[in-house]
Amino acid sequence: MKLKTSPFAPDRFPALPTVKGVRAATGSRGFYARRGVERDDVFLFVMPEGTSAVGVFTRSHTASADVDWCREALKMGKGFGRAVVANAGNSNAFTGKAGILKNEATLKAMAETLGVPREQCFLAATGVIGEPLPDANYVGKMVPELAPELGEPDWEACTRAFMTTDTFPKGAGVRCEIDGVEVSIAGILKGSGMIMPNMATMLCYVFTDAAIAPDVLDKLLRDAVDPTLNSVTVDGDTSTSDTCMLFATGQSGAPMIESVEDPRLEAFSAALHGVFRDLAHQLVKDGEGASKFVEIRVEGAVSAASAKTVGMHIANSPLIKTAIAAGDANWGRIVMAVGKSLEPIDKDAMRIWFGDHLVAEGGMRCAGYDEARASAEFAGDHIAIRLDLGAGEAGWTVWTCDLTHAYVDINGAYRT
Amino acid sequence: MKLKTSPFAPDRFPALPTVKGVRAATGSRGFYARRGVERDDVFLFVMPEGTSAVGVFTRSHTASADVDWCREALKMGKGFGRAVVANAGNSNAFTGKAGILKNEATLKAMAETLGVPREQCFLAATGVIGEPLPDANYVGKMVPELAPELGEPDWEACTRAFMTTDTFPKGAGVRCEIDGVEVSIAGILKGSGMIMPNMATMLCYVFTDAAIAPDVLDKLLRDAVDPTLNSVTVDGDTSTSDTCMLFATGQSGAPMIESVEDPRLEAFSAALHGVFRDLAHQLVKDGEGASKFVEIRVEGAVSAASAKTVGMHIANSPLIKTAIAAGDANWGRIVMAVGKSLEPIDKDAMRIWFGDHLVAEGGMRCAGYDEARASAEFAGDHIAIRLDLGAGEAGWTVWTCDLTHAYVDINGAYRT
Repeated sequence: MKLKTSPFAPDRFPALPTVKGVRAATGSRGFYARRGVERDDVFLFVMPEGTSAVGVFTRSHTASADVDWCREALKMGKGFGRAVVANAGNSNAFTGKAGILKNEATLKAMAETLGVPREQCFLAATGVIGEPLPDANYVGKMVPELAPELGEPDWEACTRAFMTTDTFPKGAGVRCEIDGVEVSIAGILKGSGMIMPNMATMLCYVFTDAAIAPDVLDKLLRDAVDPTLNSVTVDGDTSTSDTCMLFATGQSGAPMIESVEDPRLEAFSAALHGVFRDLAHQLVKDGEGASKFVEIRVEGAVSAASAKTVGMHIANSPLIKTAIAAGDANWGRIVMAVGKSLEPIDKDAMRIWFGDHLVAEGGMRCAGYDEARASAEFAGDHIAIRLDLGAGEAGWTVWTCDLTHAYVDINGAYRT
Repeated sequence: MKLKTSPFAPDRFPALPTVKGVRAATGSRGFYARRGVERDDVFLFVMPEGTSAVGVFTRSHTASADVDWCREALKMGKGFGRAVVANAGNSNAFTGKAGILKNEATLKAMAETLGVPREQCFLAATGVIGEPLPDANYVGKMVPELAPELGEPDWEACTRAFMTTDTFPKGAGVRCEIDGVEVSIAGILKGSGMIMPNMATMLCYVFTDAAIAPDVLDKLLRDAVDPTLNSVTVDGDTSTSDTCMLFATGQSGAPMIESVEDPRLEAFSAALHGVFRDLAHQLVKDGEGASKFVEIRVEGAVSAASAKTVGMHIANSPLIKTAIAAGDANWGRIVMAVGKSLEPIDKDAMRIWFGDHLVAEGGMRCAGYDEARASAEFAGDHIAIRLDLGAGEAGWTVWTCDLTHAYVDINGAYRT
């Protein structure tokens, strides 16, 4: 089926900065040509020796063979990385021995063609779960074809090469300074849900030419991902392939950072966080069938984890998501979702706002409740819901989209 | 909006047996008349002195005032119950002090009119959350009106009186023997989701004329509810008002049962389980927008709780529910849901069947996989999914329905 472009799609792909040391190429393996669509579906990234590499992956117990390999490689490669191959059109998840053989063949091609250590090569795949590939070297044979094409990344082309049900390519980048030296950050992401199997698994690659030791980079990645990519949801369905990797080539000329406490990191850390937040918001804005972007801010919780749990119960509730799709300011369903989270609250101290309009307090609809004002807050395509649980001092923000007829259509039609 | 009747609606309401000692009346308080619909929306049940009463309720932290009262009454009333008043059209949840005053007034009317102890009176309400009633005695004033009408229950009329988005009235009953004496069980239920706020909260009342001590009855209820009502889901949204109560009038002439080990309970216990399973299946078959009834059997788990968790992750996945709606035998999404449950599995020993057709084993699509056969299993309106997780010996079964366009419509339109 032809997907309708998200109403949030930007006019054009953002101009991402050059990240010194990163080279890329894209090509078509034919995953989509078989379905009558001409497009690239494989990319190759290559980085120089000494590039720090860190990653976080799906927690799923049925993770793909590619995810299993990346975890292993990060350990064996001691935090360094030289190359990434990703394909769209087949997730290589639940493909048994065949999936492992595909990885072996691809890694062999990467190591031999590029002259890099096998354990510093990373893989990703996104698409239908459980479809075996025609042969083990199906993806690997692309590597010698792409190697001569390597050059400064065409970020938009790379992003388009790993899209599945995405309706627009998603990228974000920024320049900042470390100790007075300019460094660049550029990131690309695919996914029409952070959490969406078969087709829109979240894959995210961020590159910088800063020089940052692997253990420091790992901490920066985890700190940046928690309140951004790990705080969005489209449908609550965690994928088998979620992958987010961050590479630091060290080619900017900025000094090597070897401690997370280094004050020279401050601007970089904030810039990195901004890139991830931008990518996370684009992810939700291209959520399958999305017509509204929803921010849910939960305060007054006993802990940040508790606030996030409450936020996610609201964000994943099909009743709330369908009400938002219809523009129905149904605050009672927010009360329902808070209740079913089983997190500590003070029912009588709890307050709920839609935008700036207080709708509930004192264990009931508030005295100044105005249906017209509440509805007005739900009429636009950016919805802000805020809660004070009245139970503590901690807060968290999550983002989601609505649940529309288009979601039902896309997910009934995808595989066939 | 006019709701389309579920394709699973039976031709007629089942003939429920007479339960000696139970009297009922229904009437219209006008909750629906205000919306131009003529129907009853309140019922009153009255039982004789010595009736054992037990109940299980929502675990929600934003439970309704009615649920809070029922929990308190069960403690104070020492396991005995004499009357129930329930209304549809307003859930009395998150109505603050006004909600408590409504309960006080209704209980006062019940105790005075019926001459029964206040703490043996039970309340329930279902409908929009957070709407205050016009006055505290709004429901209570129905009690003296209904009392003269009390008689042998018209089960269908009672059931229709507490429906909200239900598209057919749901009841089940059976006769069985205790120690050679015939006893009856009759149950009624409303809900278009076990778990659905604002409109289709699950309320369930089951009556028997067996003589069973409160603590024994309580154990029987919990044992019956766990694998039935607690094992269905429509949308994963737990309500603020879920209530399930079981009353035993002791008027059948069968001997009093005072121990759960009593062998004379065997047939009754099985019959009770059957009534609850029947009601649970009707609940799913009238799930909002449901077009398919889905049974998910999980075996080979490390514990029954683990099997149920896996089953519920499958049953609540919007991706699986939309695939089922479209008749797409997308077994990869089952793999996804198992993985995201984070329960122990042996990925390589796991097997998945659609109906009798094995679709996956050995960590991949099985050798004899047949797309046409798999699709055929998804073509009908009864879908059977079975898994062996390969991790242990325990199993559990859950039931759900699909996620269709009608669900999006119903929940966008309900409150307005």
